[in-house]
Amino acid sequence: MENLDSIGAMPVRRDTYTPDSLLSVAVRVFNERGYDGTSMEHLSKAAGISKSSIYHHVRGKEELLRRAISRALDGLFGILDEPGAREGRAVERLEYVTRRTAEVLMAELPYVTLLLRVRGNTDTERWAMARRREFDQQVAELLRQAAADGDLRADVDARLATRLLFGMINSIVEWYSPARAGRNGSASSEQVAEAVVRTAFSGLRV
Amino acid sequence: MENLDSIGAMPVRRDTYTPDSLLSVAVRVFNERGYDGTSMEHLSKAAGISKSSIYHHVRGKEELLRRAISRALDGLFGILDEPGAREGRAVERLEYVTRRTAEVLMAELPYVTLLLRVRGNTDTERWAMARRREFDQQVAELLRQAAADGDLRADVDARLATRLLFGMINSIVEWYSPARAGRNGSASSEQVAEAVVRTAFSGLRV
Repeated sequence: MENLDSIGAMPVRRDTYTPDSLLSVAVRVFNERGYDGTSMEHLSKAAGISKSSIYHHVRGKEELLRRAISRALDGLFGILDEPGAREGRAVERLEYVTRRTAEVLMAELPYVTLLLRVRGNTDTERWAMARRREFDQQVAELLRQAAADGDLRADVDARLATRLLFGMINSIVEWYSPARAGRNGSASSEQVAEAVVRTAFSGLRV
Repeated sequence: MENLDSIGAMPVRRDTYTPDSLLSVAVRVFNERGYDGTSMEHLSKAAGISKSSIYHHVRGKEELLRRAISRALDGLFGILDEPGAREGRAVERLEYVTRRTAEVLMAELPYVTLLLRVRGNTDTERWAMARRREFDQQVAELLRQAAADGDLRADVDARLATRLLFGMINSIVEWYSPARAGRNGSASSEQVAEAVVRTAFSGLRV
């Protein structure tokens, strides 16, 4: 490690963090330990800077959570403003949103992972869960429209279909690795997103 | 609470646990706190009996984990011995195993939830993860056979398809509630399993 000073027993580096780089360390620790299980001490150790240096950047861990969750949500809600999500038949827009949701999840993997795992009692966690539900509901609404257009099968309930669709998309966080994607036979982000769309809308069977 | 004695400050009930009822308390606590985050103290409090009473039933929390995981695995591996999983074309067997996996997951919800969430460093946790992978691999093999028979679409990679299929099935633990299932418009366990099979194999689109 470069730039090592020694304050007491704890090695620290000079605080060269930007808001983004500090956030990326915090999100990694949140995902490893759970948000509830993460203390400012853990963040300080992981970042290699003192707690007071962290407080120089943010008011506390809840602000780091809010910023991280905002990044995930901005990515997801941004999809709904794209032309592909706004123009054309509902079923086409639904397929577009499905593909893009999978892509954003992979592009912003640690941030979306955090969003999906948050369960808790602080205002920020409750806000994260409410906003996530809001996104899910907008996709559910699109799915209901596509069903009303007669473009989706009538024998799968719309609420259940939405859950299974998100179940499939969100499960990508369990195994997708940006470092391995597209190498040694591992699927690229585009191939994964395409497989989700094909499986969910056309089915695996020929 | 009945049968209250008082030992020191801690209210305890008489130990009327059977192996199964003690297991069901332990699994609930493991799922709430995570296995790593659960101490014998937590189990003792949740069960309302002393730690030494628990040690009368089992050697420790790792034995409780092993028993709980065994129950989930027995349910899952049992599927592969059923006639529907052994006879007929691979694609039919694959659909059968998909439906039954979803059903077993819902019937044994807390046990399968624990199996899916285990990540860790004890021998029992490693064994659980290895056995779970083994089950996944047997289903993956069935999927490859169905693809070789020409019954599955060729433009979704078999490994990716297996992951998405399990992603969809396993996501049921996030929202399915046995208490609500089949009431007030909530889907029953059979309806959920049927929706998984239809979505995964035939797709949502008409």
